[in-house]
Amino acid sequence: MRSTELAGRIGAVCEGGDVELNWIASFAGATAQSLVFVEHERFLEDALASQAGAMIVPADAEIADSRGKVLLRSRNPRLAFALAAEELKRSASCPGRVDASAIVDSSADVHPTARVDELVVIGAGAKIGARSHIGPGSVIGPGVVIGEDCNLVARVVVFSETTMEDRVTVKAGAVLGSDGYGFVRDAATGRYHKFPQTGRLEIGNDVEIGANTTVDRGALDATVISEGAKLDNLVHVGHNVRVGRNVIIVAQTGISGSSVLEDNVVIGGQVGIADHVRIESGVIVGAQSGIPSKKVLRGKGVVFWGTPARPITDYLKELATLSKLTRKKK
Amino acid sequence: MRSTELAGRIGAVCEGGDVELNWIASFAGATAQSLVFVEHERFLEDALASQAGAMIVPADAEIADSRGKVLLRSRNPRLAFALAAEELKRSASCPGRVDASAIVDSSADVHPTARVDELVVIGAGAKIGARSHIGPGSVIGPGVVIGEDCNLVARVVVFSETTMEDRVTVKAGAVLGSDGYGFVRDAATGRYHKFPQTGRLEIGNDVEIGANTTVDRGALDATVISEGAKLDNLVHVGHNVRVGRNVIIVAQTGISGSSVLEDNVVIGGQVGIADHVRIESGVIVGAQSGIPSKKVLRGKGVVFWGTPARPITDYLKELATLSKLTRKKK
Amino acid sequence: MRSTELAGRIGAVCEGGDVELNWIASFAGATAQSLVFVEHERFLEDALASQAGAMIVPADAEIADSRGKVLLRSRNPRLAFALAAEELKRSASCPGRVDASAIVDSSADVHPTARVDELVVIGAGAKIGARSHIGPGSVIGPGVVIGEDCNLVARVVVFSETTMEDRVTVKAGAVLGSDGYGFVRDAATGRYHKFPQTGRLEIGNDVEIGANTTVDRGALDATVISEGAKLDNLVHVGHNVRVGRNVIIVAQTGISGSSVLEDNVVIGGQVGIADHVRIESGVIVGAQSGIPSKKVLRGKGVVFWGTPARPITDYLKELATLSKLTRKKK
Repeated sequence: MRSTELAGRIGAVCEGGDVELNWIASFAGATAQSLVFVEHERFLEDALASQAGAMIVPADAEIADSRGKVLLRSRNPRLAFALAAEELKRSASCPGRVDASAIVDSSADVHPTARVDELVVIGAGAKIGARSHIGPGSVIGPGVVIGEDCNLVARVVVFSETTMEDRVTVKAGAVLGSDGYGFVRDAATGRYHKFPQTGRLEIGNDVEIGANTTVDRGALDATVISEGAKLDNLVHVGHNVRVGRNVIIVAQTGISGSSVLEDNVVIGGQVGIADHVRIESGVIVGAQSGIPSKKVLRGKGVVFWGTPARPITDYLKELATLSKLTRKKK
Repeated sequence: MRSTELAGRIGAVCEGGDVELNWIASFAGATAQSLVFVEHERFLEDALASQAGAMIVPADAEIADSRGKVLLRSRNPRLAFALAAEELKRSASCPGRVDASAIVDSSADVHPTARVDELVVIGAGAKIGARSHIGPGSVIGPGVVIGEDCNLVARVVVFSETTMEDRVTVKAGAVLGSDGYGFVRDAATGRYHKFPQTGRLEIGNDVEIGANTTVDRGALDATVISEGAKLDNLVHVGHNVRVGRNVIIVAQTGISGSSVLEDNVVIGGQVGIADHVRIESGVIVGAQSGIPSKKVLRGKGVVFWGTPARPITDYLKELATLSKLTRKKK
Repeated sequence: MRSTELAGRIGAVCEGGDVELNWIASFAGATAQSLVFVEHERFLEDALASQAGAMIVPADAEIADSRGKVLLRSRNPRLAFALAAEELKRSASCPGRVDASAIVDSSADVHPTARVDELVVIGAGAKIGARSHIGPGSVIGPGVVIGEDCNLVARVVVFSETTMEDRVTVKAGAVLGSDGYGFVRDAATGRYHKFPQTGRLEIGNDVEIGANTTVDRGALDATVISEGAKLDNLVHVGHNVRVGRNVIIVAQTGISGSSVLEDNVVIGGQVGIADHVRIESGVIVGAQSGIPSKKVLRGKGVVFWGTPARPITDYLKELATLSKLTRKKK
C-alpha cells in the first residue's frame, strides 16, 4: 500500500513524498518497505538512522532532515501504528485455499477466499466466511458459523452452536463452546449427575480470545462475548456468562456461571468472579481480586481490589492499619 | 424412548398418555419429541405453551389442563431432568466407526462399537472400550486403557500408563498422564535435574475432566482420580495426588504433589493446595483459598476460606475487625 | 549401559560386579536390568528384596549382604538417580524417523536422527536438530529453530520467530511464541486495537515448559526463557518477559509483560506478577503471592508472601495481630 493512502486511512498527515509499504517493523528489522513509529522525540534519531521507508511521528515533531524518509504525522502515533498494522495486514491477506490434508464435510460452506490449513476438521453444515483463516489442527464442529476476516490461529476447537461475527481472533489451543460445569447432586447417593448443557456461544465482532482459554456454551441459553472484548491467555468463562463490549480480561481470570460484565469493564489477571455477579459499566477490578456470588460492583472508573473485592482506597487503608498495629506490638 | 419407560428409569410418575422422546430441550427449542422440565410452578405456563411432547413437573404441581402433554411427576424435577438426559443420550448412542483418517496401531484393541474420529492417533496396545468416543485430533498413548461409554470430546492427549474406567468424560484440550514437575537440584552447579516420572494415572467411573485441564502421572506410583469426581476447566493436578469419590473441583484450582482430597470434598475455583496436604471427607474450601504444605483440614461440612485457609467464620470476623479498626483511624 | 560405566558418569562408586542396565524402576516394577535407588537406610530391605539388578545407595550405607545386586554408592542418591535416568534415556534414544502422516515443508531442515511423529506439521525453513523428538499433532511454524535432543512431547504449537537451544522439553498442549496481549485504546471510540506483536521468543538449553502453558513472543523485541529454567503446567508468560537461569515457576503462575526474573529465582504456584516487575537473583516468592506493577523484590534467599508481596515474617506477624485482635473482641 502507498504511504499516502495509508496515511488517509489512519488519520495521519503524509509528508516528504510517497512510498510503497508492506509491513511494520522495529528500527532494527526495518527495510525500505517498512513502517516504523516514534512515540517520543528521544527515539527520533534511532528511527531516522533505520532503513525504514516511512515513519509515524508525533504531529508536532521537529525534524530538520527526514533523510529521505516519508513522515506520517499523527496526534497519537501509537494508535496510528496499530491502525496501520491492521490496514497493511488486510491488504496483504493471501488468496483462499483449502489444504489437501484438511477434512471438510461436503455440506460445509467454506468461502472461496477463506484459508483452511493442514489437518483442519470442519463438520457438517459449518460456515467459514470470506478471508477467514482456520489454522493448522483446528476442529470446527457441525453447524458452527464463522464470519469474515476471522483468524483462528492454530489448533483451536470450536463446538457446535457457536457463532462468530467478523474480525474475531482466536489464539492457539482455545476451546470455544465446550459444555459448562453443571451437575445435580442426588442426595440419596451423593453422586453428581451432569445437567444438560445444550446452549449456545455467541461471539461478536473484533473479539480476541487468548491461547488455551476456555469459553463454555450456555446451559440452555447462550454465553455471550460482545463486540470488541479482549480475553487474554488461560482465561475461563463459564456457562451463561455475558461479557460486554470492549471489556478487557487479563490472563488466568475465571468467571463463573451467569455473571455479567457490562461494557468497558476492565478485569486484571487472576481475578476470580463467582456466579451471578454483576460488574457494572466502566468498573475496574485489580489483579487477583475475588468477587463473591451475586455481588454487584458499580461506579465508572472505580477500582476494586482484594478478596472480597472492595474499593482500592479502603483496601490500602486496611493494609496500612494492619502493618501499623503489627509494628506497635514489637 | 417412550415417556413411560423413561419415567420408570428416572423414578418419575408418568401421566396423560405416552409419547416417543428423543432429547431434552429448552421451552423455546422444544419439539413434539422433546422433554422439558419445570422446577418452579411459576414456569408452568411457559412449559405448557411450548411445543414439548412431555414435561417433568414437581410431584405436587397442580395442573388443570396439561394441553395434551405427557407429565412426568418427580419430587426432584432438576435431578429427574439430568437423569433423563443421561438415559436419552445413551439410547441415542451412534454405531461404532473408525474414521479413515485416524491412525490406529495394529496392536491396539478398539471395540467394534467404539467411535474414533478424524485424525486421532492410537498407540500400540491401547484398549478402547464399548461405545466409547475418541474425539477429533486426540492422541492416545501406547498401552492406555479406556473403559466403556467414555467420551474424550476432542483433541485430548492421554499418555501411557493411564487407565480410565467407565463413563469418563474428558473435555477438549485436557492432558492426562503427563510427567509431573519433579527435579533434583545439584547444589554444586545450581542446576535442576528431572527426577524420573514413571508412575501411573488411574481414573475411576463417572469422572469428568474439564477443558485444558492437566493431570500429571505419579512419580513412581500413581495419581488417582476416584469414581464420580468432577474437575472443571484449567485445573492442575500434580503427581501422586489422590482425589476421592464425588469430589468437586472448580475451575483453575491447582493441587500440588502428593496431596489427598478425601471423598465428598468440595473445592471452589482458583484454590491453591500445596504439597502433602490432607483435606478430610466432606470439607468445603472456598474460592481462591490457599492451603499450605502438609496442612490437614477436617470437619464434614465445615467451610474454610482465605490464605492460609481457616474456618470462614474466623476469616469473616477478621475482615470485620480490620475494617472497623481502619474506620476508627479516620 | 553397563553399571560400571553409568557409575562413572553419575559420580557414584560401583561395587559388587557389573550388570547391563536399561532403565530405572520402582522396587515393585524392577527387573534384572533395572536400577532402583535408596534414599534412607530404612528402605534398604525393600530394595534388596526387589528384582533390581543394581541399586543406588547412600555412600556410607552398611550392607552385610547385597544379595548379588550391584551397588552404586553416592553421597546424594536422589541426584544420582536423576542423573542416571538422563544417561539411560540418552543411551536408549531411538533412531530418526519422519512418520508418513507428518506434513513437512520441503524447505524445512529435519536432522536425519530426529523423530517426527504422526500428524505433525512443520513449516517452511524450520530446523529440527539431532535426536530431537516432535510429538504427535505438534505444529512447528515457519522458520522455527529447534536444537538437539529436544523433546516436544505431543500437540505442542510453536510459532515463527521462536528458537530453542538444546535439551529443551515442552509438554503437551503448550503454546510457544503466540502474539502477546497488547492493545491501543482509541479514546474517541472506546475500542481497543491490536498493537503489532512482531517480536521473538528465545528458549535456552535445558529449559522445561509444562503442559498447556503459554509463552508469548515479544512485542517488538524478545521474550526470553534462560538456560535451565523450569516452568510447570498452565503457567502464563507475557510478552517481553525475561526469565533467568535455573528459575523455578510452579503451576498456574502468571507473569505480565516486560517483567524480569533474575537467575535462581523461585516462584510458587498461582503467583501473579504484574508488568515491569523485577525480581532479583535468589528471591523466593510464596504461592498465590501478588506483585504489583514496577515493584522490585530483592534479597538472596528472602521469602516474600501475600498480596502485595512482603517478607513472609512481616506477613505472618500481621496475620497473628489480626487474629489476636479478633479474639479480643469476643
